[in-house]
Amino acid sequence: MSNNVLTYIHENRENHLNELIEFLRIPSISALSDHKGDVRKAAEWAVQSLEKAGLTTVELMETPGHPVVYGEWSSADNTHTILVYGHYDVQPVDPVELWDSPPFEPVIHDEKLFARGASDDKGQTFMHIKAVEALLKVNGKLPFNVKFLIEGEEEIGSPSLDAFVADNKELLAADVLLISDTPMLGKGRPAVCTGLRGMCSLQVDVKGAKGDLHSGLYGGAVQNSIHALVQLLDTLRDENGRIQVEGFYDNVIEPTAEERESYKNLGDYETELKDELGVRELFGEKGYTAREHTWIRPTLEVNGIYGGFQGEGVKTVIPSEAHAKITCRLVPGQDPDQISEFIEKHLEAHTPPGVTVTTKRFDKGKPFLAPTDHPAFKTAADSYEKVYGEPALFTRMGGSIPVVETFDQVLNIPILLMGFGLPSENFHAPNEHFHLENYDKGIETLITYWETVTFD
Amino acid sequence: MSNNVLTYIHENRENHLNELIEFLRIPSISALSDHKGDVRKAAEWAVQSLEKAGLTTVELMETPGHPVVYGEWSSADNTHTILVYGHYDVQPVDPVELWDSPPFEPVIHDEKLFARGASDDKGQTFMHIKAVEALLKVNGKLPFNVKFLIEGEEEIGSPSLDAFVADNKELLAADVLLISDTPMLGKGRPAVCTGLRGMCSLQVDVKGAKGDLHSGLYGGAVQNSIHALVQLLDTLRDENGRIQVEGFYDNVIEPTAEERESYKNLGDYETELKDELGVRELFGEKGYTAREHTWIRPTLEVNGIYGGFQGEGVKTVIPSEAHAKITCRLVPGQDPDQISEFIEKHLEAHTPPGVTVTTKRFDKGKPFLAPTDHPAFKTAADSYEKVYGEPALFTRMGGSIPVVETFDQVLNIPILLMGFGLPSENFHAPNEHFHLENYDKGIETLITYWETVTFD
Repeated sequence: MSNNVLTYIHENRENHLNELIEFLRIPSISALSDHKGDVRKAAEWAVQSLEKAGLTTVELMETPGHPVVYGEWSSADNTHTILVYGHYDVQPVDPVELWDSPPFEPVIHDEKLFARGASDDKGQTFMHIKAVEALLKVNGKLPFNVKFLIEGEEEIGSPSLDAFVADNKELLAADVLLISDTPMLGKGRPAVCTGLRGMCSLQVDVKGAKGDLHSGLYGGAVQNSIHALVQLLDTLRDENGRIQVEGFYDNVIEPTAEERESYKNLGDYETELKDELGVRELFGEKGYTAREHTWIRPTLEVNGIYGGFQGEGVKTVIPSEAHAKITCRLVPGQDPDQISEFIEKHLEAHTPPGVTVTTKRFDKGKPFLAPTDHPAFKTAADSYEKVYGEPALFTRMGGSIPVVETFDQVLNIPILLMGFGLPSENFHAPNEHFHLENYDKGIETLITYWETVTFD
Repeated sequence: MSNNVLTYIHENRENHLNELIEFLRIPSISALSDHKGDVRKAAEWAVQSLEKAGLTTVELMETPGHPVVYGEWSSADNTHTILVYGHYDVQPVDPVELWDSPPFEPVIHDEKLFARGASDDKGQTFMHIKAVEALLKVNGKLPFNVKFLIEGEEEIGSPSLDAFVADNKELLAADVLLISDTPMLGKGRPAVCTGLRGMCSLQVDVKGAKGDLHSGLYGGAVQNSIHALVQLLDTLRDENGRIQVEGFYDNVIEPTAEERESYKNLGDYETELKDELGVRELFGEKGYTAREHTWIRPTLEVNGIYGGFQGEGVKTVIPSEAHAKITCRLVPGQDPDQISEFIEKHLEAHTPPGVTVTTKRFDKGKPFLAPTDHPAFKTAADSYEKVYGEPALFTRMGGSIPVVETFDQVLNIPILLMGFGLPSENFHAPNEHFHLENYDKGIETLITYWETVTFD
């Protein structure tokens, strides 16, 4: 890394942290309508911060919800563009009595910055702004064009983002998208998240007799909707945890042997997980580790079940109806609509006698798989290594990040999830904080990335 | 039947019906504390009615709840005693707007007496009083001693009766117990109910991880409590409806081939049942008819199930807990405690990995099987035949009648369930009524019974 850029960062560290603290003081809780003004204030703050960094086109763009902040610096000399995504909104702070210091009065303790949004995602977004600022101030230019898209609705599921990205596809065109909103594996263990699971979801409704029946007068002669539902759901999974829906695994893109080997090298996860969950034994599809269960294998989970009597004691009723909620986590290669269809077919084929079964589909999302052979990924790992002394591990996450799916579908460019938070930093919980070690090293890593990345 | 007794009944028909109407005017709803005074008024009415019938010892006996009315007539000449049980309390009347005439303003339409309690059980209890009155008035004596036990808490589950019967075992000693509180099979088809199912009940609680989990972050690596519950419950029954709990059927007393043959002669029940329940097909244990499923076969039903998310849409949660309520209907030979134990053992043996399963027992009751070879039963069938031109069918009921279990356990005498109501008479529902045809024939049947029964 050029010494001058690093010097700029070091000399301005205190000023920059004070700026971040100012940003964190704004209670930009997107979920609460009372905070609508604060959310806008945070957007305006981000506009000023991008302008201060030296971006030439900075704009607060309206959406049906909270505004998007857009910033750009470009030069005719540059042939490639880096797009940076972040968000300036934060989670609610309840239960506020569990915070050791007020969530919007940032404090630094033990080299950790405590405040709502410190890590998720004001702190990490701010690092990108300061990395670009340092490069522009010291060099007067950037080696690539930059575009910033900082939204204010991430914590409420980005309801305006799909339309915004689709409507502004040209404006957002770039060669790579950088997002810092995922955790590292642990202290000193940087990670690039290269895969996310998708989702499909449905409700299963079982209907038997036209009303609830007296179990004495009718019991034994008529199908019980709960029994039928239980029998039906039990056909979905075998005793080894493998999903029995025909076609379910057909299109799964298996990770390479090398990728699976790299997961093994991350060390034991089972013991930690058992402790964390308070269970004596884990349970998952035979032939895979716990990390693989959550990262590279699809699931089918019953998230809710209900029918009949739920009060104290017992009631001798044969329930007319029984219901279940199902979601699948899908891995690369699986299509949410196709999997939903397979499940519906399975349920139809296995419907027990004496009941009718109907289904209703809900939310869905496609899985994400990063093109890890693209040079932008190797540079990321190398940049981390130069700063942390450890190459970034290419990991995955079992959850979904809806914005990643949106960008992946609409922009169709490599998405690089370079996070600097730690899993222990209480995102969405009381006492959210950000380790300044990763604030400092993160900015250096980003500057290194800007200085070394290639696109061909 | 002696002509004089019959003449007494015929000549006094209008007076008796007016008396019954007076009885029915009292809104003795035992479930509603506002009606406590009315319940007592009905008890006092029953006392007067027994006194008027010529019983010599009549007493209103206090209990912790509503009083019991006791009446007795005995003679040193008699060696046997008939005990009659009935109840003077009635069900609530909601929804009252569905009644065509006010529930406590009895009216006669088309030879049917409409009022709450007309059939269940004031009308049927009154018939016993009038049969005894006719015999006493005309003959000056009865061929057997008689005891009446008329309670006021049947519609709320007879909470005081167990203790009352146990405390008054000597007082209630008798050779046979007559109860008229069960329906005939249909118009002109008298029936003696010779068997009732017992019950045992339990709750099953499944616990996995210490809290609900995010299905993205953990899904696939940890047991899902709902899946585990579903898998566990599905082991309880096979696809043919046969219960898979070891020992479940071991002690079932199979009905005789003759008894099963007699059920076949009752005619088709399946078509009627499908229509009534609104299902395209019935479902029950292979090898038995629908009537047998509900009368002579034990069941295991899941009456309620719950766990995880039950709201609108979906929530990607792996629930920590899942619960089910189970009741069994038991047939003669099965012991509720033993069956509960068998089920608990089965659940323990089939507990899926990664969860703990606990159970809690609730209400239970023993099955009832009448000693149909006792001469008191043959006389009942013959008495019905003399009046109706049809012998009473020996049938069973799939439900339980808690008072029958109490009498069976404590008094240990034959219990004869000689009902005169029709299944269509809306017990517990709006527009309850009683067919006067069965009121008239019923009194004649009871008098015939008194005049012909033998005990040896």
